[in-house]
Amino acid sequence: MKMHIALDAMGSDRAPEVLVAGALQAVDEAEIEVVLLGDESVLRTALKNLGRESDERIKIVHASQVIGMDESPIVAVRQKKDSSVVKAFDLLKIKEVDAVVSAGNSGATMAAAIKSLGRLKGIARPGIAGLFPTLKRPVVMMDVGANVDCRPKHLFQFGIMAAAFSEVLFNVKSPRIGILSNGEEGGKGNVLVKNAHRLFQQSSLNYIGNIEGDDTFQGDVDVITCDGFVGNVCLKISEGLAEAITLMLKDELSKTLKAKLGYLLTKDAFAEFKKRIDYAEYGGAPLLGLNGTSIICHGRSNSTAIKNAIFVAAELVQKKVNDRILVLLAENSAIQEEAHLLVDETLDGDAQ
Amino acid sequence: MKMHIALDAMGSDRAPEVLVAGALQAVDEAEIEVVLLGDESVLRTALKNLGRESDERIKIVHASQVIGMDESPIVAVRQKKDSSVVKAFDLLKIKEVDAVVSAGNSGATMAAAIKSLGRLKGIARPGIAGLFPTLKRPVVMMDVGANVDCRPKHLFQFGIMAAAFSEVLFNVKSPRIGILSNGEEGGKGNVLVKNAHRLFQQSSLNYIGNIEGDDTFQGDVDVITCDGFVGNVCLKISEGLAEAITLMLKDELSKTLKAKLGYLLTKDAFAEFKKRIDYAEYGGAPLLGLNGTSIICHGRSNSTAIKNAIFVAAELVQKKVNDRILVLLAENSAIQEEAHLLVDETLDGDAQ
Repeated sequence: MKMHIALDAMGSDRAPEVLVAGALQAVDEAEIEVVLLGDESVLRTALKNLGRESDERIKIVHASQVIGMDESPIVAVRQKKDSSVVKAFDLLKIKEVDAVVSAGNSGATMAAAIKSLGRLKGIARPGIAGLFPTLKRPVVMMDVGANVDCRPKHLFQFGIMAAAFSEVLFNVKSPRIGILSNGEEGGKGNVLVKNAHRLFQQSSLNYIGNIEGDDTFQGDVDVITCDGFVGNVCLKISEGLAEAITLMLKDELSKTLKAKLGYLLTKDAFAEFKKRIDYAEYGGAPLLGLNGTSIICHGRSNSTAIKNAIFVAAELVQKKVNDRILVLLAENSAIQEEAHLLVDETLDGDAQ
Repeated sequence: MKMHIALDAMGSDRAPEVLVAGALQAVDEAEIEVVLLGDESVLRTALKNLGRESDERIKIVHASQVIGMDESPIVAVRQKKDSSVVKAFDLLKIKEVDAVVSAGNSGATMAAAIKSLGRLKGIARPGIAGLFPTLKRPVVMMDVGANVDCRPKHLFQFGIMAAAFSEVLFNVKSPRIGILSNGEEGGKGNVLVKNAHRLFQQSSLNYIGNIEGDDTFQGDVDVITCDGFVGNVCLKISEGLAEAITLMLKDELSKTLKAKLGYLLTKDAFAEFKKRIDYAEYGGAPLLGLNGTSIICHGRSNSTAIKNAIFVAAELVQKKVNDRILVLLAENSAIQEEAHLLVDETLDGDAQ
């Protein structure tokens, strides 16, 4: 079955060219059709600039509005009914496409997704799953930004959704799940973590307990669950540190003639290394917990990242990640009843 | 005035030799005397092994007990009255020494410190200030592990304490303070962050607003405030990533002959670079908010880290960091009254 992926081609930090180039790479490398959403004349120009004026595997659906990076997600989605991101999800809702990829305002993407698709049955809060490179295979962290104040049940469901994603994308059988905490012992953590720990302990999942920040990159855990505030900070601090380390190293390697010469000889190795830590390699972060499939890409995504995101979106649809989430939810339905008893012990006002 | 620093010489992940070696380096390089706390015969042997059987600038005070890394801090401190860490703070309490340095169980160090010294007047929760390397001067993050569930007032006071520390240690005038959040806009953050933001906005401090994880390493902020759960995760994820990146890079550089040759030429530059990202260079993390000065070192500290921690401890005493904290607290006393009004909006059960 040929996959049809809608790409919100506007609203990224970069010009639409990068997004369009990513779409072209995707259709060239796989049995995929891409529907570009955005200003038709802008997109036609982009295609022309890339020397690909007409390609039957690329369609354009005109959208007269764009939601900017700084706009309030909820308000913008409500008001801009003809924006590229809202129209992309409209296409998914009527099954004109199989999935949506967006590099625009991630809050607006989430808001449009929830509005058009609705939540997967039984999911309290959809979230964003982020991928981190490790010394072995990538680890999935969820949530990395959609839900800043969470209850134990939310962390538990993030674990379920991320486990299904890890199974499907990396063919991991029974992924090892850990809760991100400030210590490995069961007694460690804030109130939220301690209560989530109790839920996971009773579950059918392969729960390995609390894990600490420095375990993230060892590759000895497949899924890390945390609230979206902590996950977002982790994602950004990792990006920032990787960038700073690269700059510091470059600085040191330019200080002496010997080091400069050495740098020339190690250049290829550096390129390989950068690829390993480059978040673009993983394409993007899926929104999980919705009646449909969607990937959010970094605003600074290059065309390779866009292509990879399109591939991951297609794979999640083909391998039915949502069906797997529903199975895991059903297997653990009793625990979610228990979760209600924990609500009062933890948080306060709703954050969504 | 000659400084006297107590060093809890037991309880670290490493043998006491490393700690003793750090003490010897400190007394060799500065006008400092160190009091070693621990098993006298073990410490005498360590000194002998280092070829320094007797040194008038090193004293030993025997402690028959050790608090292990895995012991419950509160229980251990209450029960092990003759442990090295408890006795170190006893010496500080009676002013036999000017400060305490420990590389043992950090929770136990904090518990012993609070028990012996008490809190600084007006401070609700003492905390741990961590240092992060940046492209410019190090940034102070607080709290990095002592208080996992916090209220807005706590974050506000962490900001004050870390600012005083930044002023004293790095001679920063009016340090720039940011709250760690999942977005830079004032409306971003969890409930805790949003309310802390309101307090900082009204303060006399140089508050620059929310900062994101990737701003941490840019060096454009001097103080980052967050709860101890988030801070601890940040500290450990940074350590873990720095280590993983070094391993990945080494791996790439050993793959081809050319890269291996290049590595030989860049070796010195790498050593310099490692020094820049090495947390050991900063010695340790001060406990702030107590009637006294104390530094916690990493359990894996090498002798240089111990020496540096001893120097930082001496500097904090000489430059009267606690007096500066009291001044900043007094300047912002009205805001702390306001803080009480925010309590009910955020957290619930006490976590300490």
